[in-house]
Amino acid sequence: MENLIWIVSPEGDSITTWKTDIRSVLENEELLKKSPKWIHLRGIDEQVENFLLKNFKINELSLEDCRSEGRSKVEVFEDYVFVLMIYFDGGISRQKKLCIFWGKDFIITIGSRRLFEETRKNLSLEERPFEQGVERIFWLISSIVADKFKGVTDILEEQADEIEARVFKEQNPELLEDISDLSFEILTLRRTLKQLRDTYKSLISSVSRFINPENIHYFRDLLDEISILYDRAETLHEFTQNVLSVFSSLVSFKLNDIMKTLTILITILEPLMLISSFYGMNIEELPFAHSPYGIFVISFLMIGISFFLLYYFRRKGWI
Amino acid sequence: MENLIWIVSPEGDSITTWKTDIRSVLENEELLKKSPKWIHLRGIDEQVENFLLKNFKINELSLEDCRSEGRSKVEVFEDYVFVLMIYFDGGISRQKKLCIFWGKDFIITIGSRRLFEETRKNLSLEERPFEQGVERIFWLISSIVADKFKGVTDILEEQADEIEARVFKEQNPELLEDISDLSFEILTLRRTLKQLRDTYKSLISSVSRFINPENIHYFRDLLDEISILYDRAETLHEFTQNVLSVFSSLVSFKLNDIMKTLTILITILEPLMLISSFYGMNIEELPFAHSPYGIFVISFLMIGISFFLLYYFRRKGWI
Amino acid sequence: MENLIWIVSPEGDSITTWKTDIRSVLENEELLKKSPKWIHLRGIDEQVENFLLKNFKINELSLEDCRSEGRSKVEVFEDYVFVLMIYFDGGISRQKKLCIFWGKDFIITIGSRRLFEETRKNLSLEERPFEQGVERIFWLISSIVADKFKGVTDILEEQADEIEARVFKEQNPELLEDISDLSFEILTLRRTLKQLRDTYKSLISSVSRFINPENIHYFRDLLDEISILYDRAETLHEFTQNVLSVFSSLVSFKLNDIMKTLTILITILEPLMLISSFYGMNIEELPFAHSPYGIFVISFLMIGISFFLLYYFRRKGWI
Amino acid sequence: MENLIWIVSPEGDSITTWKTDIRSVLENEELLKKSPKWIHLRGIDEQVENFLLKNFKINELSLEDCRSEGRSKVEVFEDYVFVLMIYFDGGISRQKKLCIFWGKDFIITIGSRRLFEETRKNLSLEERPFEQGVERIFWLISSIVADKFKGVTDILEEQADEIEARVFKEQNPELLEDISDLSFEILTLRRTLKQLRDTYKSLISSVSRFINPENIHYFRDLLDEISILYDRAETLHEFTQNVLSVFSSLVSFKLNDIMKTLTILITILEPLMLISSFYGMNIEELPFAHSPYGIFVISFLMIGISFFLLYYFRRKGWI
Amino acid sequence: MENLIWIVSPEGDSITTWKTDIRSVLENEELLKKSPKWIHLRGIDEQVENFLLKNFKINELSLEDCRSEGRSKVEVFEDYVFVLMIYFDGGISRQKKLCIFWGKDFIITIGSRRLFEETRKNLSLEERPFEQGVERIFWLISSIVADKFKGVTDILEEQADEIEARVFKEQNPELLEDISDLSFEILTLRRTLKQLRDTYKSLISSVSRFINPENIHYFRDLLDEISILYDRAETLHEFTQNVLSVFSSLVSFKLNDIMKTLTILITILEPLMLISSFYGMNIEELPFAHSPYGIFVISFLMIGISFFLLYYFRRKGWI
Ligand SMILES: [Mg+2]
Ligand SMILES: [Mg+2]
Ligand SMILES: [Mg+2]
Ligand SMILES: [Mg+2]
Ligand SMILES: [Mg+2]
Ligand SMILES: [Mg+2]
Ligand SMILES: [Mg+2]
Ligand SMILES: [Mg+2]
Ligand SMILES: [Mg+2]
Ligand SMILES: [Mg+2]
Ligand SMILES: [Mg+2]
Ligand SMILES: [Mg+2]
Ligand SMILES: [Mg+2]
Ligand SMILES: [Mg+2]
Ligand SMILES: [Mg+2]
Ligand SMILES: [Mg+2]
Ligand SMILES: [Mg+2]
Ligand SMILES: [Mg+2]
Ligand SMILES: [Mg+2]
Ligand SMILES: [Mg+2]
Ligand SMILES: [Mg+2]
Ligand SMILES: [Mg+2]
Ligand SMILES: [Mg+2]
Ligand SMILES: [Mg+2]
Ligand SMILES: [Mg+2]
Ligand SMILES: [Mg+2]
Ligand SMILES: [Mg+2]
Ligand SMILES: [Mg+2]
Ligand SMILES: [Mg+2]
Ligand SMILES: [Mg+2]
Ligand SMILES: [Mg+2]
Repeated sequence: MENLIWIVSPEGDSITTWKTDIRSVLENEELLKKSPKWIHLRGIDEQVENFLLKNFKINELSLEDCRSEGRSKVEVFEDYVFVLMIYFDGGISRQKKLCIFWGKDFIITIGSRRLFEETRKNLSLEERPFEQGVERIFWLISSIVADKFKGVTDILEEQADEIEARVFKEQNPELLEDISDLSFEILTLRRTLKQLRDTYKSLISSVSRFINPENIHYFRDLLDEISILYDRAETLHEFTQNVLSVFSSLVSFKLNDIMKTLTILITILEPLMLISSFYGMNIEELPFAHSPYGIFVISFLMIGISFFLLYYFRRKGWI
Repeated sequence: MENLIWIVSPEGDSITTWKTDIRSVLENEELLKKSPKWIHLRGIDEQVENFLLKNFKINELSLEDCRSEGRSKVEVFEDYVFVLMIYFDGGISRQKKLCIFWGKDFIITIGSRRLFEETRKNLSLEERPFEQGVERIFWLISSIVADKFKGVTDILEEQADEIEARVFKEQNPELLEDISDLSFEILTLRRTLKQLRDTYKSLISSVSRFINPENIHYFRDLLDEISILYDRAETLHEFTQNVLSVFSSLVSFKLNDIMKTLTILITILEPLMLISSFYGMNIEELPFAHSPYGIFVISFLMIGISFFLLYYFRRKGWI
Repeated sequence: MENLIWIVSPEGDSITTWKTDIRSVLENEELLKKSPKWIHLRGIDEQVENFLLKNFKINELSLEDCRSEGRSKVEVFEDYVFVLMIYFDGGISRQKKLCIFWGKDFIITIGSRRLFEETRKNLSLEERPFEQGVERIFWLISSIVADKFKGVTDILEEQADEIEARVFKEQNPELLEDISDLSFEILTLRRTLKQLRDTYKSLISSVSRFINPENIHYFRDLLDEISILYDRAETLHEFTQNVLSVFSSLVSFKLNDIMKTLTILITILEPLMLISSFYGMNIEELPFAHSPYGIFVISFLMIGISFFLLYYFRRKGWI
Repeated sequence: MENLIWIVSPEGDSITTWKTDIRSVLENEELLKKSPKWIHLRGIDEQVENFLLKNFKINELSLEDCRSEGRSKVEVFEDYVFVLMIYFDGGISRQKKLCIFWGKDFIITIGSRRLFEETRKNLSLEERPFEQGVERIFWLISSIVADKFKGVTDILEEQADEIEARVFKEQNPELLEDISDLSFEILTLRRTLKQLRDTYKSLISSVSRFINPENIHYFRDLLDEISILYDRAETLHEFTQNVLSVFSSLVSFKLNDIMKTLTILITILEPLMLISSFYGMNIEELPFAHSPYGIFVISFLMIGISFFLLYYFRRKGWI
Repeated sequence: MENLIWIVSPEGDSITTWKTDIRSVLENEELLKKSPKWIHLRGIDEQVENFLLKNFKINELSLEDCRSEGRSKVEVFEDYVFVLMIYFDGGISRQKKLCIFWGKDFIITIGSRRLFEETRKNLSLEERPFEQGVERIFWLISSIVADKFKGVTDILEEQADEIEARVFKEQNPELLEDISDLSFEILTLRRTLKQLRDTYKSLISSVSRFINPENIHYFRDLLDEISILYDRAETLHEFTQNVLSVFSSLVSFKLNDIMKTLTILITILEPLMLISSFYGMNIEELPFAHSPYGIFVISFLMIGISFFLLYYFRRKGWI
């Protein structure tokens, strides 16, 4: 695979984009002289690493983190801030990683092409896209990441509502598996949001060098958005824990129901069985046995006992 | 819908209110020259945004938060403090949002008309309503919000008491659903109170510029009120968790009860059945079978066994 | 109701107390000129409020808190410290409130007469009661409050011990209700102690103006006492949670016991029933049916099966 | 009881001990003039209090704490540090209290004689016992206390291992009671260790005046030891919580087992009973009833049904 | 056992290693004069202690900790930093201890030979191994320890996945034991990671003296790696707690299943039994008893009842 590279830079009041491969960039160094610029790459391999090491003095530690880590983090270096963001693109199962190297007059992003295109589209809608250097680009990316988290949280909330609607209607292992899966997705969402929130917190407290002080509100607002989502994830977690214990109580209920059915049935039939058995004995002098009304006496006795027991269970509140 | 606007300003020792629409205000700029003033709006749309941007230099971030966020927050800008309050008006299901832009000599509120009218009534009862600028208005609004939270907490506490009274009397899925619903409402209340408490905390530590230092007690007292309510919500949460586990133990109890009934019944009747069956065999030489006293011997044997087993269960403490 | 008022002031090396009503105090202003002095009131109404506002410049916020709040708190004002203490007088159900306005040379308490009398008695036992102004009075009151908390904690610990003794003996809804009630009382105690502990913490860190620095040990000791009680309440909470889960396991045990009884009974009797039924068939050629020894063969078969099953259950460890 | 007193002081490169009673010490003031010195007492009464108040200016608050408190604490006074240690001597049930008054050139301990003798023995093994004043004595005592905690933690860990070994073998109320008792002992150990850990933490941060700075490592090491033990106690707590829920699941399992036995038995025998009952009817024209092969047909039918049901349960995985 | 010792030192741009025993080192003091140097030992005994005390002024407290402690820790001494690391070499059951004495120009490691060889191999792959003194060696060791933790976490995650796959298929005591064991291993891993994380945190904040400031990123990165693993362990913990409660709900389900089978069977067979018994009575005038169609009437009645009950249970959703 060739290493595609996108270079976005200002062109008057608008933006212009070069799409090429790294080898071409290395041959035509003109492209890197634009300032400010936004460089996007789709992945990281040896060629990309060398390119970043040589042209932007990116520390090997950042490159290593970008290759292997799975937790949002921020690290401030002398020439740039390294930000790693973990986000979800449409569902918890589609976890994505985005590396950002944010320097004075450049921003390099390594990640999915879709996120790049969405950000570039929003950037092109700005009035003066590069007026505030690359800071605005970082904020645009972060906003899209926050929106994606919002989308995932919305989905999980809907699923939680569906599950709550089901829990009083059906109690079966399939529902249990759904609750269990949802519960794990919520734990994952909550943990990922917590890490991103901590990342933004330490970003805000450490990058005064990179952010225009009158724009700090934009980054605080971002932090607030993530905090709101974290709160929603926390609530979802407590909600599913609640659903799980309600579910478990309902299973116990159902067992009570089954056992009540069994007990009522046995309680009503056993005495009748005993009478029948009693009269089945091969013994002399069974009372009424030889009377022509015996069958009526015995039948009425049986029906009477049944009605009495039915009345008894109704009073006890079982039926 | 036209954008109604209320402008409240001092008139001697009393207050005066203009109710009109935004277009009229824009045409008659006299209205905005009053100082100090309290402006109330019922909602936010493009016209309102333009009005606020142009006349009060409200940051677009605040407007965006006012439109979409669902968590109490405070943000200090150069010219004003933006406060977003989430509260409940009569019940957890009636969640309301109130945006406040609190400047040196103006306060703008966007939210429900009812809250506005209640605050205005309290303001008109003050001796010198605008003596301390608009600070007092902010405090009056916050007090009414705190009262509304108090009302909701009272309601949930009553519901919790009712549920506790029911839990030892009935154990059924309806009660479980009520506990589950109440538990979720309490979680919502607790979270909302926590966010409001954090909002007041950071308000107190950051708005020395806006609050008269000798009035700081009023705001600390407000924080205390919310903290007390948070504590009550926390207690309610622990209370319902307790009720839930008591409920679950009671369901287990009831199952024991059912199974005891069944076991006692079977234990007493089965031996009698066996005797009956034994004498039902088509076999020679059944003892007592041909004696005329057989029926008495067998009946006494059966009654004797029954009494022995009843005695045995009573000793075991089952009946 | 007349507003009774007690005024305690030094009289040589001892103390003297005036008991009168507020109206008399207002008429005879001599009484308020004594310094230092301790004033006690039993409750708060409009007359009391006016009296405190005029003579001691007590802030209306403090009066409002004293009237309505239910959480221990401390607030430092310019001329005095306002301390609100919530305590229990003999049991969790007897919650009491005490308001203290602690100034340079006066201390005003509003609360139960019993607490006043106990403190006054202890004060009169001091060698030089007012030697250190009113600081000692505050400490004496706090010590009595701490003792009352200790008493309540002792009671709850005893109840917890009783309940633990019962839990292995009986498992019934009454015990469950007792555990549930105790658990709630412990939660209440713990919360109240936590609030009082926080109150003392912030008192110690803020009232250097009012406390003689060489007496700070006395207040730290008070804080330690409350912290110890809080720890005991926390332990009690964990203890009852433990008891609750032990209880719930024991209920499950008992069900196992019941089901074992039932299963053993049915397992032993059913085969016998089957043999009886088999020989009850109206069918030709039942083996042994017409032999005079049939009854012995069949009886021995039945007894043999019973013994075999009893042996089997004993080996399985069920009986 | 006479108040025995031990006074340990340096004697060349070794130590010397006077054992006498307080009255003698008061008469022969020579004994108290030695410096540095370590004084040990077995308990606290009025005579001891007067002795400490007069000769060492010990604050009455410290004496009161020494008499009544049950939580490790440290309090720094002008002339000495007061340290109260709660420890276990061989088992959670043998809780002991040790009070230490640690001054510039004296250390006074009030507590068990055994701890005194163990410390004195270790002190006598030192090369120059009093070279660093009394600081070393405090460290020696603390080390022995830490060892005793280690011993108790070892015992509880062994008990936890035993219980884990039992939990998969037997499930009965005795085991539950053992788990419950162990769980409570672990809670007690954890709480006591936490308090001691906090005591050492605040000791290290506050007694720079008393500790030789180059010996601070010794006290940090002590803190580490207690922290390790606290971690072990925390792990033990989580371990027993785990055992408790495993236990509870196993009880449920056993119930399943019992119910399976019952269900299998009834399922196999009931159809046979029905056939027998069917042929027991006093009715004409029962099929095969009068055939001489009837008994074989019916017996084979019964055996066939039994085998089919056994096969069915085996496929369902129940047997 | 002889005390083997390895001494690694720079040799031009590469490294050289002496493997000998301590006695030889003591005789040939030349070996210790190399600087910087890395000394490795396999264990600690009196000879090793004397060697370290005399030649490197290692504090006896460090040696004691190295011998006996079981928790990662760091302690800064005047001449060196003492770091104790607890790690797992392939599985939770293979816990290992590594002591590091890190001085200005020496690093001494006491621990497993395997870790030594792995680090030495990585060191020899460096371009200029000792360029930055011994700091790089410490970092190489720590990286290998982090990798080993990563390996163990991977294993436990795989086991958790396996167990989740099993939990919906089988519910038996063996699975419960596996969950319980895994849960305990995860608790151990989490605790050990927490201690190592805290160790690195305090190392970073305290060893500015030993670390080249421009290399601080390497150590922060190490801390991040351990933090990620801790997060994974935390997630694993929550995952197994979830699996445990799902498991417990499934056991309840299965019981419901068993009881439903039993109830259905009894409900269908008992009425048939009653009819059979009814017709087994030795009584006159049983309806249809003497009719030649009686057997058909009764059989149809029985089959009808069975079908009706089957239909009823299907509607109730039980079958
Ligand atoms: Mg977490
Ligand atoms: Mg939250
Ligand atoms: Mg929460
Ligand atoms: Mg939270
Ligand atoms: Mg939770
Ligand atoms: Mg919860
Ligand atoms: Mg609270
Ligand atoms: Mg909370
Ligand atoms: Mg709390
Ligand atoms: Mg709590
Ligand atoms: Mg909770
Ligand atoms: Mg609780
Ligand atoms: Mg505690
Ligand atoms: Mg605790
Ligand atoms: Mg606590
Ligand atoms: Mg708890
Ligand atoms: Mg607990
Ligand atoms: Mg917990
Ligand atoms: Mg721990
Ligand atoms: Mg833990
Ligand atoms: Mg812990
Ligand atoms: Mg716990
Ligand atoms: Mg746990
Ligand atoms: Mg826990
Ligand atoms: Mg827990
Ligand atoms: Mg975590
Ligand atoms: Mg944790
Ligand atoms: Mg968590
Ligand atoms: Mg846990
Ligand atoms: Mg959880
Ligand atoms: Mg929990």
